[in-house]
Amino acid sequence: MTDLDLMRTLTQPADTKIVLLVMDGLGGLPRQVNGPTELEAADTPNLDRLAREGMLGLMHPVSIGISPGSGPGHLGLFGYNPLKYLIGRGVLEAVGIGLRLTDQDVAARGNFCTVDADGLITDRRAGRISTDECARMVGLLEGITLPGVDLVVKPVRDYRFVLILRGPGLSPCLTETDPQKIGVRPLNAEPEEDSEAARHTADLVNQWVEKVRDRIRDQHPANMVTLRGWSEEPGLPSFHDVFKLNAAALAVYPMYKGLASLVGMTLIQGLADLEDQLQALRDIWHAHDFFFVHYKYTDSRGEDGDFDAKVKEIEKVDKAIPRILEQNPDVLVVTGDHSTPAVLKSHSWHPVPLLFWAPGVTRSNPDVRGFGETQCLRGALGQFNGVDLMKLITAYGKRQVKYGA
Amino acid sequence: MTDLDLMRTLTQPADTKIVLLVMDGLGGLPRQVNGPTELEAADTPNLDRLAREGMLGLMHPVSIGISPGSGPGHLGLFGYNPLKYLIGRGVLEAVGIGLRLTDQDVAARGNFCTVDADGLITDRRAGRISTDECARMVGLLEGITLPGVDLVVKPVRDYRFVLILRGPGLSPCLTETDPQKIGVRPLNAEPEEDSEAARHTADLVNQWVEKVRDRIRDQHPANMVTLRGWSEEPGLPSFHDVFKLNAAALAVYPMYKGLASLVGMTLIQGLADLEDQLQALRDIWHAHDFFFVHYKYTDSRGEDGDFDAKVKEIEKVDKAIPRILEQNPDVLVVTGDHSTPAVLKSHSWHPVPLLFWAPGVTRSNPDVRGFGETQCLRGALGQFNGVDLMKLITAYGKRQVKYGA
Repeated sequence: MTDLDLMRTLTQPADTKIVLLVMDGLGGLPRQVNGPTELEAADTPNLDRLAREGMLGLMHPVSIGISPGSGPGHLGLFGYNPLKYLIGRGVLEAVGIGLRLTDQDVAARGNFCTVDADGLITDRRAGRISTDECARMVGLLEGITLPGVDLVVKPVRDYRFVLILRGPGLSPCLTETDPQKIGVRPLNAEPEEDSEAARHTADLVNQWVEKVRDRIRDQHPANMVTLRGWSEEPGLPSFHDVFKLNAAALAVYPMYKGLASLVGMTLIQGLADLEDQLQALRDIWHAHDFFFVHYKYTDSRGEDGDFDAKVKEIEKVDKAIPRILEQNPDVLVVTGDHSTPAVLKSHSWHPVPLLFWAPGVTRSNPDVRGFGETQCLRGALGQFNGVDLMKLITAYGKRQVKYGA
Repeated sequence: MTDLDLMRTLTQPADTKIVLLVMDGLGGLPRQVNGPTELEAADTPNLDRLAREGMLGLMHPVSIGISPGSGPGHLGLFGYNPLKYLIGRGVLEAVGIGLRLTDQDVAARGNFCTVDADGLITDRRAGRISTDECARMVGLLEGITLPGVDLVVKPVRDYRFVLILRGPGLSPCLTETDPQKIGVRPLNAEPEEDSEAARHTADLVNQWVEKVRDRIRDQHPANMVTLRGWSEEPGLPSFHDVFKLNAAALAVYPMYKGLASLVGMTLIQGLADLEDQLQALRDIWHAHDFFFVHYKYTDSRGEDGDFDAKVKEIEKVDKAIPRILEQNPDVLVVTGDHSTPAVLKSHSWHPVPLLFWAPGVTRSNPDVRGFGETQCLRGALGQFNGVDLMKLITAYGKRQVKYGA
């Protein structure tokens, strides 16, 4: 039985309220041997208290030794096996800028690039043009049409854009047109499976690229495009059907709202910062029973390589904890979707510290003094995979029946 | 390769003797933050000594975050993946009262219920009639016959009974007749698959129910029946074939003897209490090499919500440990089939403390002072799934060959 089938069978509605607070990229590393990680260096009296009252563990979002992207990291947190369900780059970019996909869509991530007079790529990122310049370039592509499909082209950031083909009989089984090197031409899209839909889609894509080339050949530095990450709406089973939870997503960044929307969570719109999120949590508390609260800047400062700034972001979230506790959640989980150690300046494979607080049903561990990676090593939850988190959440939230008689 | 195929390949006979002592529902929770669990509160000098000499761990009988019923809990302990092998409610009730099933049997769990003059259910449990009244009612059903099958009807407890249809060409793929609400008629059994066997069985069941209705329509309060949990003997591979162990089950309660019989263990009959079990262990020591000893009352007191009484049951078992050690087992495992924290009054998903003692081949862990959940967190065995226990047992019992060259 798959994880989702098992959960669909065992979960049932209940009155309990659950908060999943995700500090993006929470996990860290020390700057020197036996030094503190970012979380350990941070002054977090509220999280430390919850750690002593609850349970700690270390979570592998995808699997031991795997560095997750945002998509797989969040799918794991939401209970979907990220090794089974893959969200393609095209779809991820699309939901990341707030687009809603239909089951007729094929999406790709596009790059503006620079080609020379012979059509050979001289810069795969067109000099990393600005987002404004990208938007201007996308504007030049308006009005291009293809037979039988609608087209959506939207700027993302810098030289990146999204292309969506919308219509019947399309397939994402296409090769990428980015040759991943300079000095050669962009490739044609080719069908990757022997199907009419794939041949048809490849043909449409190549027609579109030809039209784009004609439109922007005299622009500079962006005078050509490449396309990759062909993908379609992943058709994830609904979070509500599987877990019987009426979930709300309180996220500031479109990417995380998009990921929540792929599993059918209700998106709370118009949130600009943590204060907005806390206010919204109070306002919608009565209307939902699962609250996904996403905080981005721990990851951003980790990616910057700024250890001290990441520490400060963690401390900001710690100060918000009492505001969350005012709502009297039955289960509060604080964790990340992956680690982003400042010393690595990137997502990493290190398991993510996880704090599980559910008064009255958690096992004590007098060894634990506060929230941090080293403390999590001694935690009652041990080390486990992200896909199992929703099993724990629904169990501690008293939303599961016994398995078997 | 499945777990069982792997074990079938690697295990071989040996002279070692193994005792698996299951304290049902052993795992517990503290009554207050950082208080002791039932096992930690118990005075267990013998188990504490074994914990210091052996190894500890925490076991998830089915999976992290899943609350096991008795069936899946024991299947895991016996090395059978409980997510693969499921024992239906009808079969579990049947083996629970000591019935032996054949491969021609289809079993259901029945309820006596009360219907009004229009046949609408007014009480799904017939006022929770006593077991004696249930036995009298079952007596009224004697002599009902169906073409081509033998019938077995036996009282279980209160308003519950077991129905077995025995004959060729039957199928358990039937819908339940209990509508799970009052004010409506019991449902007909319908085939759940498109097969002659399912249609035939449904027809027989509906005939039987009609005859039952006629027999008991003037009784009160039980004047009708519902049927659910259609199931057949699960056809588990034999414990002896898989593990090359000649196993004996020393259990007092029929349910656990039944579960042991489903994997082909030899049932030692006539055991009324722990003293009987210890005596039998000595008497049959020469004749078997694996001894499943089951103690029920730790679970019973947990289900009652009586923390102190559960502590006392654990202490009773601790006093029995020297009697077991007198036999000089090569491996002694002490654990539970699931947790039943008194504070929850029910089976729970919390991993079960496990003590593994095998002189000469266990890894030392100087951190461990005694047997308890917090100590198990520091144990050399870490956290693992129930299905892996038999791998450990046969390995430490020197009954496995190397995997691969």
